[in-house]
Amino acid sequence: MATYLSTTYAESLSQRAAERTTAYGASIWSEILELRQHHADPVYFGDGAPAPEAMPVERLREASARAWDDAPGALGYGDGEGYGPLREFIADWMRPRDIHASAADVLVTAGSTQGIELICRIMLDPGDTIIVENPTFLGALEIFETYQVNIATIGMDEDGMVIDDLAEVLTREPRAKVIYTIPTFHNPTGTTMPLERRQRLLELARQHNVLVVEDDPYEALQYDGERIAPLRALDDSVVHLGTFSKTIAPAIRTGWAVAPKPIFDLMLSARQLMDLHNDRITMRTVYHCAEGFLADHMGRVRPIYKAQRDAMLAAIEAEMPDTTSWSRPDGGFFVWITLPEQIDVATFGTIAADHGVIYFPGHWFMPDQGQRNVIRLSFSTVPEDRIREGIRRLGVALRTVPGIT
Amino acid sequence: MATYLSTTYAESLSQRAAERTTAYGASIWSEILELRQHHADPVYFGDGAPAPEAMPVERLREASARAWDDAPGALGYGDGEGYGPLREFIADWMRPRDIHASAADVLVTAGSTQGIELICRIMLDPGDTIIVENPTFLGALEIFETYQVNIATIGMDEDGMVIDDLAEVLTREPRAKVIYTIPTFHNPTGTTMPLERRQRLLELARQHNVLVVEDDPYEALQYDGERIAPLRALDDSVVHLGTFSKTIAPAIRTGWAVAPKPIFDLMLSARQLMDLHNDRITMRTVYHCAEGFLADHMGRVRPIYKAQRDAMLAAIEAEMPDTTSWSRPDGGFFVWITLPEQIDVATFGTIAADHGVIYFPGHWFMPDQGQRNVIRLSFSTVPEDRIREGIRRLGVALRTVPGIT
Repeated sequence: MATYLSTTYAESLSQRAAERTTAYGASIWSEILELRQHHADPVYFGDGAPAPEAMPVERLREASARAWDDAPGALGYGDGEGYGPLREFIADWMRPRDIHASAADVLVTAGSTQGIELICRIMLDPGDTIIVENPTFLGALEIFETYQVNIATIGMDEDGMVIDDLAEVLTREPRAKVIYTIPTFHNPTGTTMPLERRQRLLELARQHNVLVVEDDPYEALQYDGERIAPLRALDDSVVHLGTFSKTIAPAIRTGWAVAPKPIFDLMLSARQLMDLHNDRITMRTVYHCAEGFLADHMGRVRPIYKAQRDAMLAAIEAEMPDTTSWSRPDGGFFVWITLPEQIDVATFGTIAADHGVIYFPGHWFMPDQGQRNVIRLSFSTVPEDRIREGIRRLGVALRTVPGIT
Repeated sequence: MATYLSTTYAESLSQRAAERTTAYGASIWSEILELRQHHADPVYFGDGAPAPEAMPVERLREASARAWDDAPGALGYGDGEGYGPLREFIADWMRPRDIHASAADVLVTAGSTQGIELICRIMLDPGDTIIVENPTFLGALEIFETYQVNIATIGMDEDGMVIDDLAEVLTREPRAKVIYTIPTFHNPTGTTMPLERRQRLLELARQHNVLVVEDDPYEALQYDGERIAPLRALDDSVVHLGTFSKTIAPAIRTGWAVAPKPIFDLMLSARQLMDLHNDRITMRTVYHCAEGFLADHMGRVRPIYKAQRDAMLAAIEAEMPDTTSWSRPDGGFFVWITLPEQIDVATFGTIAADHGVIYFPGHWFMPDQGQRNVIRLSFSTVPEDRIREGIRRLGVALRTVPGIT
C-alpha cells in the first residue's frame, strides 16, 4: 500500500489549527541546552527540582513494591478523585498549616501544572482577565497565554504583591475572574506575603467575586522566619494547589487541589475529560512513601537546602557588584537578583555561559518581558561548593561589562 | 484564625465559570451504580476494560522493580515526548500493521483520552465542526461537547461510517476541521470499515483539508476475519491514537499518538502545558513489561476474549426475541444489539437491572441521543458462564414487555 508523501499536506492541516495555538512559544529548553554547550562544566542554576540526594529513592522503591500488592484490583479504571488513603494523607499533611480540609475536598492531579490548567478550563472564557504577580511562575504564564485572556499584572515589592495595585486592577477589570498567586516563597522572587496583605487580598477578592488560586509548591521548604497562614487557612473559598514534586520527586507527577465543593466538582469533571485519573499504582506508591515518613524526611532535607541557600546568599554578598540587590528567601528554591541597570540579561546570558554559569533571565517570568536586568537563581540542585564557584563566575562575567566594578 | 463559612460564596464563584462548563453532564457512573443495587448478583456488561486474568500482573511487578533501577536519574522532570525506548517499542509494535513510524513520530500520552483532548486543544475553535460516527465512543463525545463546536454525525451500517453521507457533510460544513473515527472494532458497534471505504474517507479528507484522527484502541484484539490496513498505514497525515489500556491495564494511563510533524509539534506543546509528561517510572515499567513479551501475551489472551465473544453471540442467538439484530465483531470488546422497536432502553434499564443484567444504553453514544432501542454489551470482563446467564436474564426481562415473544 502506498504511503503518501504528505509533509506539505500536514502543513496545510496545521495551518487550520485552533487560534489558541498561536500562543505556543518556542520552548525555553532549546535555548538553555544551547547555553550549556558554551563551557565544559557549567554551573546550572536553572533547575526548580529537588536535589537528587533529597529524593527518597529506597523508600519509593519499597513503597512501589507495596503498591503492586493491590494489583490486579487496582489495575482497571477508577480512583477518579484520587486514591482514598492518599487524599486522607494530604488532608492530614495540610492540617498543621491550619488548612482544615477533609479527604473529600482533595482532588489528586497530575502535578500542580494540571491544577493550574484545570482552573483555566473551568473559569476562563476568551476575553476574561486573570490577575497574576509580575513576575510569576513561567509554567503558569504559558498556560494562561493559551486561554486567549487578558493577563493583568500586579507589581511586587519585598512583601510580594502590591495590594493597592490589586485593588486598582480589580476595579478596572470587570471581567477579572481569577487571582493566581504564589504567596509563600514565591517563584521566581523568593518573597513571602505578610499576613495583613493576605487578608486584604482575600477581602478584595470577595468584594469583586473573584476566585483566588493559591499555588503553594514550596510550603514544606521553610528554612527560617515565621510561619504565615496560607490563604486557604484564612478563607475556605480559596483553591489551594499543592504538589509532591518538590518534596518527593517531579517524575511521579502527583499534585493536588483543595477546592470548595462547587469548584471541586467542576475541576473533577474537567479532569475526567482530560485524562480520567492519575496512574493508580503511582498514587499508591506516593501514599506508601509519604505515610509515616514525609514529615521526618523533610526534617532531614531542609538543612541541605538551607545550607545551599546560605552558601548562595554569602557568595552573592561577596561577589556581586555594588549596584546589585537580591532577595533573601525564608524558603523555597530561588534567589532573585537585580543586576546593574546597564545589563541586559538576555544578551548577557551568552557571556555568563562562556564563563560557565547559567541562570534563568527574569523577563521569562513577565508577560511583557519588561525588565531586562533581573535573573532567577535556583540553589536546590547545586552543592555548596558549586554554588560558590558559580556565583564567583557570575561576578567575573559581570565585570567584563564596561562600567561594572 | 477564623474560617469563613463560604459555601454560598463558592457557589457565586462557580456561577462565573467558563461557558464550556455548561457541557459537563452528570456522570453516567452514578446511574450505573444505582442500577447495580437492583439485584444481589448482577451481570455487568458495561466494562470496557481488559479481563483481570488478562492483565500481566507478575510481569508488571517485575518490570516496575527494573524501572526503579533508573532512579534517582529518572526522578526529575524530563522525557517530555515519552521515554525513548518505549517510543521505540511502540514504533516497532505498529510495524506489522504497516504503520511505518519512527520513535520520533510517537508521543506518549496519558491514555488515548488525553490524545483526543490534545486534538481538540490544537484544532478546534468555538463554532468549528468535528465529524464523528453515530454512534461513537462516549468518552470522546463528552470531550467534544466541551469545545463549543458543532458535532456533525455520520450514520453507520454493518461496514461502519456511510461514506456518501460523509461526502455530503464535508461539502455542507466549511468549518469541518477534524474527522474522528474508530474504523476497527468500533466502540460501541463492533463494526470494521472495509478497505475501500477507508480509501474514500482519506480522499475526501484530503479534498476538504480535514484532519483524520484514527482512534485504534482494540487493534491487538482481533479474533478472526481479515486484517485491514489502519488509516495511518494508508496516509501518513492521519493522527493515529493507540493505548496500552486494553492490552496491559487502564490504571497505568499510558497511550500514544502518531502524528505528522507539524501536528505532532502542536500536540507536544499542548501536552506540556497540560501536565508536562507521563510518570517517568511508569513509562519505564510499561516498556520493561511490553518489550519481548506483549506480542506473546496477546497471543495468550486473545483466545479468552474470543471464547467470551463466541459465548455472547451464541447466547444472543438462543435467547433474543425474533425481531432483534446484532453485530458480529471480528475483534474488540463489544456487541451492539438492536432490540425490538417498542423497547425504550432508558426505561427498560431498570427492568433489566431488576432481572440482574446491566448494559450501556446505545443513545449514550449519540450526540442527539436519538435511537432508543439499541444497547452495547461488553464481553471483555465477563466469564463465559456469566455471559450465558446474563443474556438469559436479558431475554427473560425483554419478554416481560407486552408484545415481545
